[in-house]
Amino acid sequence: MKTVVVTSNPRADLKIVDRFATLGVATTHEASGRAPNLMKAYMRPVWPGASIAGTVVTALTQPGDNWMIHVAAEQCRAGDVLVVACTTDNTDGMFGDLLATSLKARGVRGLVIDAGVRDAAVLREMGFPVWSRAISARGTVKSTLGSINVPIVCAGVAVRPGDIVVADDDGVVVVPAADIAETLAAADKRQANEAGKREKLAAGVLGLDLYDMRPALEKAGLRYVEKLGDA
Amino acid sequence: MKTVVVTSNPRADLKIVDRFATLGVATTHEASGRAPNLMKAYMRPVWPGASIAGTVVTALTQPGDNWMIHVAAEQCRAGDVLVVACTTDNTDGMFGDLLATSLKARGVRGLVIDAGVRDAAVLREMGFPVWSRAISARGTVKSTLGSINVPIVCAGVAVRPGDIVVADDDGVVVVPAADIAETLAAADKRQANEAGKREKLAAGVLGLDLYDMRPALEKAGLRYVEKLGDA
Amino acid sequence: MKTVVVTSNPRADLKIVDRFATLGVATTHEASGRAPNLMKAYMRPVWPGASIAGTVVTALTQPGDNWMIHVAAEQCRAGDVLVVACTTDNTDGMFGDLLATSLKARGVRGLVIDAGVRDAAVLREMGFPVWSRAISARGTVKSTLGSINVPIVCAGVAVRPGDIVVADDDGVVVVPAADIAETLAAADKRQANEAGKREKLAAGVLGLDLYDMRPALEKAGLRYVEKLGDA
Amino acid sequence: MKTVVVTSNPRADLKIVDRFATLGVATTHEASGRAPNLMKAYMRPVWPGASIAGTVVTALTQPGDNWMIHVAAEQCRAGDVLVVACTTDNTDGMFGDLLATSLKARGVRGLVIDAGVRDAAVLREMGFPVWSRAISARGTVKSTLGSINVPIVCAGVAVRPGDIVVADDDGVVVVPAADIAETLAAADKRQANEAGKREKLAAGVLGLDLYDMRPALEKAGLRYVEKLGDA
Amino acid sequence: MKTVVVTSNPRADLKIVDRFATLGVATTHEASGRAPNLMKAYMRPVWPGASIAGTVVTALTQPGDNWMIHVAAEQCRAGDVLVVACTTDNTDGMFGDLLATSLKARGVRGLVIDAGVRDAAVLREMGFPVWSRAISARGTVKSTLGSINVPIVCAGVAVRPGDIVVADDDGVVVVPAADIAETLAAADKRQANEAGKREKLAAGVLGLDLYDMRPALEKAGLRYVEKLGDA
Amino acid sequence: MKTVVVTSNPRADLKIVDRFATLGVATTHEASGRAPNLMKAYMRPVWPGASIAGTVVTALTQPGDNWMIHVAAEQCRAGDVLVVACTTDNTDGMFGDLLATSLKARGVRGLVIDAGVRDAAVLREMGFPVWSRAISARGTVKSTLGSINVPIVCAGVAVRPGDIVVADDDGVVVVPAADIAETLAAADKRQANEAGKREKLAAGVLGLDLYDMRPALEKAGLRYVEKLGDA
Repeated sequence: MKTVVVTSNPRADLKIVDRFATLGVATTHEASGRAPNLMKAYMRPVWPGASIAGTVVTALTQPGDNWMIHVAAEQCRAGDVLVVACTTDNTDGMFGDLLATSLKARGVRGLVIDAGVRDAAVLREMGFPVWSRAISARGTVKSTLGSINVPIVCAGVAVRPGDIVVADDDGVVVVPAADIAETLAAADKRQANEAGKREKLAAGVLGLDLYDMRPALEKAGLRYVEKLGDA
Repeated sequence: MKTVVVTSNPRADLKIVDRFATLGVATTHEASGRAPNLMKAYMRPVWPGASIAGTVVTALTQPGDNWMIHVAAEQCRAGDVLVVACTTDNTDGMFGDLLATSLKARGVRGLVIDAGVRDAAVLREMGFPVWSRAISARGTVKSTLGSINVPIVCAGVAVRPGDIVVADDDGVVVVPAADIAETLAAADKRQANEAGKREKLAAGVLGLDLYDMRPALEKAGLRYVEKLGDA
Repeated sequence: MKTVVVTSNPRADLKIVDRFATLGVATTHEASGRAPNLMKAYMRPVWPGASIAGTVVTALTQPGDNWMIHVAAEQCRAGDVLVVACTTDNTDGMFGDLLATSLKARGVRGLVIDAGVRDAAVLREMGFPVWSRAISARGTVKSTLGSINVPIVCAGVAVRPGDIVVADDDGVVVVPAADIAETLAAADKRQANEAGKREKLAAGVLGLDLYDMRPALEKAGLRYVEKLGDA
Repeated sequence: MKTVVVTSNPRADLKIVDRFATLGVATTHEASGRAPNLMKAYMRPVWPGASIAGTVVTALTQPGDNWMIHVAAEQCRAGDVLVVACTTDNTDGMFGDLLATSLKARGVRGLVIDAGVRDAAVLREMGFPVWSRAISARGTVKSTLGSINVPIVCAGVAVRPGDIVVADDDGVVVVPAADIAETLAAADKRQANEAGKREKLAAGVLGLDLYDMRPALEKAGLRYVEKLGDA
Repeated sequence: MKTVVVTSNPRADLKIVDRFATLGVATTHEASGRAPNLMKAYMRPVWPGASIAGTVVTALTQPGDNWMIHVAAEQCRAGDVLVVACTTDNTDGMFGDLLATSLKARGVRGLVIDAGVRDAAVLREMGFPVWSRAISARGTVKSTLGSINVPIVCAGVAVRPGDIVVADDDGVVVVPAADIAETLAAADKRQANEAGKREKLAAGVLGLDLYDMRPALEKAGLRYVEKLGDA
Repeated sequence: MKTVVVTSNPRADLKIVDRFATLGVATTHEASGRAPNLMKAYMRPVWPGASIAGTVVTALTQPGDNWMIHVAAEQCRAGDVLVVACTTDNTDGMFGDLLATSLKARGVRGLVIDAGVRDAAVLREMGFPVWSRAISARGTVKSTLGSINVPIVCAGVAVRPGDIVVADDDGVVVVPAADIAETLAAADKRQANEAGKREKLAAGVLGLDLYDMRPALEKAGLRYVEKLGDA
C-alpha cells in the first residue's frame, strides 16, 4: 500500500458547499439520482441536530491506530470535513476531544469516521459534529502509516479529496467533485417541487392522487377487495 | 403472492385503544402473559418520549420500494397506526416527512416500520412518532406491488389489521384483536398491584421479601457463603 | 456451575471511587495502560449524561430469567454498582423501574447489564443510570439459579466483586481492585498532562508538533507529495 | 401466554409432501408467488446436502429452555418436521443427538429451529437433517412452559401446524395448508418451463433474448455506450 | 497494560487432557454444570471434523497485529493449544500456514483465536485444527506488544494458562485448572448415563417418560387440548 | 444515478490473470502491500475448494432486483469474473443455476456478489464458483435499472472493469488494472521467499529467529518473567 500524504488536494467553492448544508442529506441523495453515494446506516451522529457540508479531506488508517489522523489535521483547513476510513472493521476510539479541539481551531466543520470516537459528552458540549460507526473509549497506538488525501472507501462509499460531504441526522452522503453542479441544480428543482406538495398533503390530498399513481397501480394488477377471502 | 388492498379492515374501540397508550409497552406485554407479541429490540423510536396506541393497518412492501405506503395511506383513518413489513431485511428510507404529513393529516397516530425512514429531524419537529429498524436517506422506487391489510410478520411478530399496537421508548407490542379485553383486564390488575410495590421497594423492602422468594430460592438449592472458597 | 451468593464481598474506598467518576471512562482506560478492561461498544447508556463510579457487586444470570437480580439487591449497599452478566447472549428486559426503585433505595449508583432493560422512560425520569446491551420490554421468569459475587465476564471484560467500575457516555470500564492505586496515579498524571495540551491545540499548535511526531513519521517512511501521481 | 399442547394437529397428504421435497426450496418459493414464506437467511443446514419436506408440528420455547421439545416429540409422527421458535433471540444448544434419536425413531424427517443445536458431528453421522440459527453446546434447563401446535413465527415466517415445510441447502420455506394445491400446480408448471430454458442458456442463448427483455430495458431508459465518458 | 511473557506456565497431565478430547465439547460443558465456560457461537472450526483438547497457552494481541503470536510459539510445547484474544473485535488474518507449520513442528494441537485466520485451504490439507471468529486474508503488522500466558477473555470466556481447552464441531469450551478432576468425574458419569438412554430413545421410549417429566409438566400447568379453541 | 451499459470494458492479459489464480488471495493481498483491496470477511464461497482469477465485469443492482445481471451476462466473455454490487445491503437470491448456466456457457470463471444466491447445491454440482454475502432462495423482480461496467464498491472495495479479481477459500481480493505488473512482481518475490521459510519452520526454527524479531521486541520493552507476580 502506498503510504503518502497528498498536499495539494482540491477544494470546492464554499458558497456552493454551504448550500448543500441547507439542502441536507436526503435531498442531496435524491438530487444525485439515488446514486450509490450514501454511507451505510450504521454511521450515526454522536449528538443529534447538526447539519453540515464541507470539502472532503481523506485519511486511511490502520485498526487501533490513529496516527494518520494527526497527520491529516495539518492538511485540513476552514470549510473541510475530515473523512476517515480504516483498512478493516474497527470500533476503537480513534478520535476524542483533543483532536476535535485541534480540528476546530483550523475551521474544520466536522468528522466522518468509519471507526469509533470517544469523549462523546465533550464533543456535544464543544458543538463539534461527528458521525461515526461507534462510540468507544478504546485507546489507540501511533505506529503504522496510512495515507492522506488518497481515494478511500468509507462506510461503503467511494470518497475522493475534493468531493463534498453532507451530514445530518439522516446520515452521510458524498457528492463527487465532477457532479456538484448537476446535483445542486437537481436539488434546487426538487426542493421547489416538494414545497407545494407538502401543503397539499397537509390538506389531505393523497399521494396516490398528487403523484397520479392510480393508473400505474391498476396496470400493475393491484386489486381492491372488501375482505381477504375475496382476493 | 397475492397483491391486494383489503378495504374493510376492522377497528378497535378508540376508548380502549387509548387506555393501552397509558399502560405502555411493558405493562401491555406482561398483561398478555408474556406472549410472543413483542417486536425485536432493533425497533427503536426515531425520537424518544412518544407513547402511542392505535388500531393496526398493515402494509407489506418490497425492498427499496415504498409504493405500497402511498397505497396504505388511503386505507388509514384517525386512530390508526400504520405497521409496515418488508419481504426481506431492508434499511432503505421508505418513509419521510411528506408521507408523515399525509398520515398526520388523516389522524394517523404513528408509524411502525421494519425498514428505514428518513427526515429524522423533521419527524421530531412535527411530533410524528415513528419506530423503525434504521434511519437512512436511501431513496426508494415505486415499481413492485405488495399488499395492504393482509396478515404480516413485522420485526418477528405476527400482526393483523384490527389488532392494537402499542409503542413507546421500550419498543413495540401487538395485542391481537381477540385478546384485547382479556389483556386490558390483566393490565389493570397488574398496575394496581405494582403501585403498592413501588412504595414498599422505595422504603427499602427487598423484592426477596415482597415477593416471598426466599423459600423457592432455598428449595432450588441457593447457598449463601461468606467467601467463594467456602462454596 | 456453582450457584452461590458470596456475602462478604470487599468494597473500595468511596473517596477513591468518587475520583474515578470525575476522571471518566476514557481517562481511566488510558491510565490503565489500555488494558483489556473496556466493555464492548454495544454497552450503551439508557439515557445520556450520567457519569458514575462504584464498587462492583456481580450477578450471573440465565437467559430470560431475572431471579438473581432480586437476590443481588440484598447484597448491594451505598456506593455499589451492580454488574450483571448472562450465561449466553440475551436481550430480554431483566430490569425495570421496580428493581431500580429498590436499588436506588439502597444507595446503589447504577446498573451495568449485558442484557436488556425496560421502563427506559421511567429510568430517565428517576435519574437511575443504566448501561445495557439493549432496551426491551420482554418479560422474564424467576426459575433458574445463578450466582452473586463470583467472578464474571461482562461484555467481554473479566469483572470481580470489589473492582471499581466507571461508566459514562463513552461506555464502561473496570479497574481491578489490585490496580486501583496505580491507575489513579497514572490518571492524575495524564489529566495534568492533557490540560496544557488542550490550550495549545486550541491555539492552533498541531499534534504533529505538540507530540513531536514528525521524526518518527519520517523514519517510518511517510512521504509528502503534491499530487497522487507523484507518489 | 397460553401454554397448551394441541394434540389433533392436521397432516398434509404425504404423497404431496414428498413432491415438495423433490421441488426444493427455491422452486417452492417461486411457485408461491414469492410470498413472504421464506425463513431468514441465517437459518443454515447443520450439514449440507439434505433436502426434505414434511408436515409442520410447531413448538414455542423459552430462551435457554428445551423442555417443550421433549413435549413436542410425543406429538410428532412419521412424515412430520418439527419447527421450533423461541420467545426471544437465543442460540443455546436446545437440541442434540439424544433428541434426534428420539425424533428419528418416530419417523420425523428433520428439525427446523430458530435457536442453537449441538452434537453437530453426530447429527451428520446419523443423517438427521437440521436447520438452525447456530451451532452451540450451551446447555439448557427444563423449567418454563411454552406451547405445542400453536401458530408461531419462526425466523421471520408465520408457521401453523399442518403447513408443509421444505428445507434444503438454500434454506427453509413454508407452504400454508390452504395454499398447497395451488403452489404445487404452479411449481410443476415452473419446472416444466425451466427445463427447456436451461438447455437454451447452456447453448449460449442470452436471458435477454430468452425472456425477451430488450424492449422493456429500452423503454426503462437503459443506454449502451462505448465508454463511460459517453454516458 | 502489562506487556510480559510468562515463561513458567503450568501444564495439565496429558493423559487427562486426552480424555477430554474423547468426551468432546458438549459433554465437557454439561459436566461442568453448564458453567459460563463455553465460547460464543461465532467461534467456528476452519474445517469440520477435528476434535481436540490441550493445555492452554494464552496470547493477548492488538488489532491487526500478530507479533505476539510469534512470541507465543516459543512458549508452546507438545500437548498445548494456543488460545489468542485481541484487545478489541478484529477479524484480520493473524494466522496462516507458516505459523501453523511452526506450531505443528512443536507438537501444538491446535489454535483457538478470537480474530481471523487465512490460508484456510492449506490448514485443512495440513490437518492443523483451528477455531476462529473469521476467515480473512487481511495482512497484519508486527509493531505493538501484548502479553503471553496472562489471564485473558477469549470469545466471552475467562481463560488462564494451564486450563484445559476442548474444541470440536460444536465449538470451544474451557475447563479451569482447579475444576479438572471434578469435571472429568462428572463427565464420565454423564457418559455412562447417556449410553443407555440412547438405546431406549432409539427404541421409541419418549424423553417425557425416560426422564419422568410428566408430573412436573402437569404441576407447571401444561394442558393438553384437542383443538386450539379448547385452550 | 446514471444507468448505462459500458460495452468496451478493457481486459487483462489472461496469461497474467491465470498466474494470480495460482498465487491465491492471501499472497496477492500481501503482494499489493496490504492495500485496502480485500473484500469484507462476510464474502464466503458457496462451496469450498475453488480458486479463481479473472478480469472484472461490474454490475450495480437494486435490492431484490436481478435485472441487471441478465444485462451483464451479454457483456461477459471467457476469462471474466462478474462482480455484482447492490445499492444497499441485501441478501435476496439474485443468482441461481439458470444464470450460472448462461455465464458458464460464455466462459465466465465465477461470480462475486454482495447479495444472496440460490440453488447452492446445483452450483456445487456444476462446479461454478460463487462468492456471496448469503445463500437465500428469496426471489427477485426485474423492474429497476442499474449499470454495467461502471466503477462500483463491492463488499467494501472499490472495483473497476478491467481490474483483476482473485477468489479462493480465504475470500476475494481486487488488483487494480494499473497495479497488476507491480503486484505480480511482488507476489513472485514473496512466494520465493516463503518457500524456504516453510521448511525452516517445519524443522523447528522459530519465527522469532527466522525473522530476527528478538531485538525489536526487546526494544519495544517486552519482558520475560517466570511468574505473573514477577511482572
